[in-house]
Amino acid sequence: MNSKQRFLGACRGAALDRPPVWIMRQAGRTLPEYNAVRQRHSFMDIVRTPELAALVTLQPVQRFPLDAAIIFSDILVVPAAMGVDVQFVPHPVLGTAVKSSADVDALRVGGAAESLGYVAEALRIVRAELGDEKALLGFAGAPFTIASYMVEGGGSKTYSKVKGLMYREPALYDRLLTAISDVTADYLAAQIAAGADAVQIFDSWAGELGPADFAQFALPYVQRIAGRLAGLGAPVIYYVNGVGNLLEHAKASGAGVLGIDWRVELGEVRRRLGSATVVQGNLDPAVLFGPKELIRAKTYEIISQTTGVSHILNLGHGVQPDTPLEGIETFVQAVVDWRRPEHE
Amino acid sequence: MNSKQRFLGACRGAALDRPPVWIMRQAGRTLPEYNAVRQRHSFMDIVRTPELAALVTLQPVQRFPLDAAIIFSDILVVPAAMGVDVQFVPHPVLGTAVKSSADVDALRVGGAAESLGYVAEALRIVRAELGDEKALLGFAGAPFTIASYMVEGGGSKTYSKVKGLMYREPALYDRLLTAISDVTADYLAAQIAAGADAVQIFDSWAGELGPADFAQFALPYVQRIAGRLAGLGAPVIYYVNGVGNLLEHAKASGAGVLGIDWRVELGEVRRRLGSATVVQGNLDPAVLFGPKELIRAKTYEIISQTTGVSHILNLGHGVQPDTPLEGIETFVQAVVDWRRPEHE
Repeated sequence: MNSKQRFLGACRGAALDRPPVWIMRQAGRTLPEYNAVRQRHSFMDIVRTPELAALVTLQPVQRFPLDAAIIFSDILVVPAAMGVDVQFVPHPVLGTAVKSSADVDALRVGGAAESLGYVAEALRIVRAELGDEKALLGFAGAPFTIASYMVEGGGSKTYSKVKGLMYREPALYDRLLTAISDVTADYLAAQIAAGADAVQIFDSWAGELGPADFAQFALPYVQRIAGRLAGLGAPVIYYVNGVGNLLEHAKASGAGVLGIDWRVELGEVRRRLGSATVVQGNLDPAVLFGPKELIRAKTYEIISQTTGVSHILNLGHGVQPDTPLEGIETFVQAVVDWRRPEHE
Repeated sequence: MNSKQRFLGACRGAALDRPPVWIMRQAGRTLPEYNAVRQRHSFMDIVRTPELAALVTLQPVQRFPLDAAIIFSDILVVPAAMGVDVQFVPHPVLGTAVKSSADVDALRVGGAAESLGYVAEALRIVRAELGDEKALLGFAGAPFTIASYMVEGGGSKTYSKVKGLMYREPALYDRLLTAISDVTADYLAAQIAAGADAVQIFDSWAGELGPADFAQFALPYVQRIAGRLAGLGAPVIYYVNGVGNLLEHAKASGAGVLGIDWRVELGEVRRRLGSATVVQGNLDPAVLFGPKELIRAKTYEIISQTTGVSHILNLGHGVQPDTPLEGIETFVQAVVDWRRPEHE
């Protein structure tokens, strides 16, 4: 069984001798070979140049025994494709924060996904390099998270602008989120057509919504995307940062795999979701700053909480830029070395 | 029944005609009368000058029909009292981030709480002004949150330094947290002696710990403080931002009241904690940016989830600086106007 078969088997609920493993943000700032590329090219140049994006995508799978590569890109290429000015300074700054009906009317929907052909091209290059040995993932941001950036004009600590819009003007909010959802669905479908075996939808900020607001203002748009992708044969992973309070709702996202952050234990997730839901996660990224024995112990503790059900090992959030490489190596190797007792 | 009786009654589990209400960060940047004071005095001058701190503490209870005042101060006065340089630029920057045994040895413990006499003096002034009409709250940061600032050297998105320390050097981490706990217990006891009717311990960042780490690295120090305060007759409120995944552990904090953020519904909290635990919260601060009808509806929805058990109304996090004053007014008035059906 190669890595791709292992990864797709886990997504489909197969019983495996060991879970597959990859790491959110595995390509990028944590790796010296990425930083070497970055010295010669800007972040957005790497994202927009298929050969560079492909090179950087392959770096972590060449260094570590990971089961999947994930295309190097950024969730903010979608608002950029919709006509919003996006700059990284280095934190993201989005021009003309969306706040009126005219702002939504001005967004490009038709043709937006097609303008992201450079991502599809990068996926084709990576696919050719990987062959069918390892899985290849595409991704996009979830509509609430993307809308947050567009309405706030960048990151936020409070989300008061985007929440204010949804509370005061729910119809306008719905038009904005629907537009983002449709572009995102087209974009993810194009990634699958270009060779992505699975796609992950990142909802970095939906955990800032209470459960009722999540169900009303975030989930329906993820369901819209998942519905559009359902016939394409590629598993969909829905990752919500802060999913612990939202599990019962998130289960209905339409995605086959639910990505879990580290703030909730997988044993608890299992009790609340049942054994049918495939989960991904969830080591605290900060554990990789700890000693090797602790990394291994905490990794095996996570696996022990999911024994008997399909599970994709990952961190509970993106790997941090200053993470020691030996911490990453220890984590990945611990998973690769593990065997389910009955398979020993 | 006046506001102080109402507030203390709720803390002790009494059945009331309506819950008491106050707002985290009710004194400060949201109010024009505070900003007028701030134009003439720095933030730390206000905190360190008892007459100014008292003036600012009283502003919100003069403007809104709140049941409690909370002393205007900052959780970082504790590390400052322990000898750490603390600057607000305006975000907090702490000098000489704690990372070694020598750094912990250098911290002042004995006498640290006494050096915060200006807070006690401010409490005495406010107490004299309020009389026994309204409740008066003191507060401090929880040890994990304070340690985070001290080890990270300020705010953090990742907490990798403080978590790295606790994973790599648990004995050193324990010494640091114990020192913070002892200073904090003395400091809160002094606030109670100076007239605080109750004290709140703010754990802004403990929600960034997984449940097992919370139980091991945050909770024991809160228990240590609560144990020290147990005989003083003042209720202790323990607020954890992100408590939804930690409820079963947080219940054992030793505090009589548990403050709940907005990411988990109080009905769910009730199911998991039982009806004996008094809860405080938990309207999403962003709701105050919405229309009045929505503010009222969401406030009454929260009350409906706690009917029959003691509950202190509050936001689920601090009020945001740019919140419309009429949003705050609507929220407070909605609680004041509400009556339990059997009391109508």
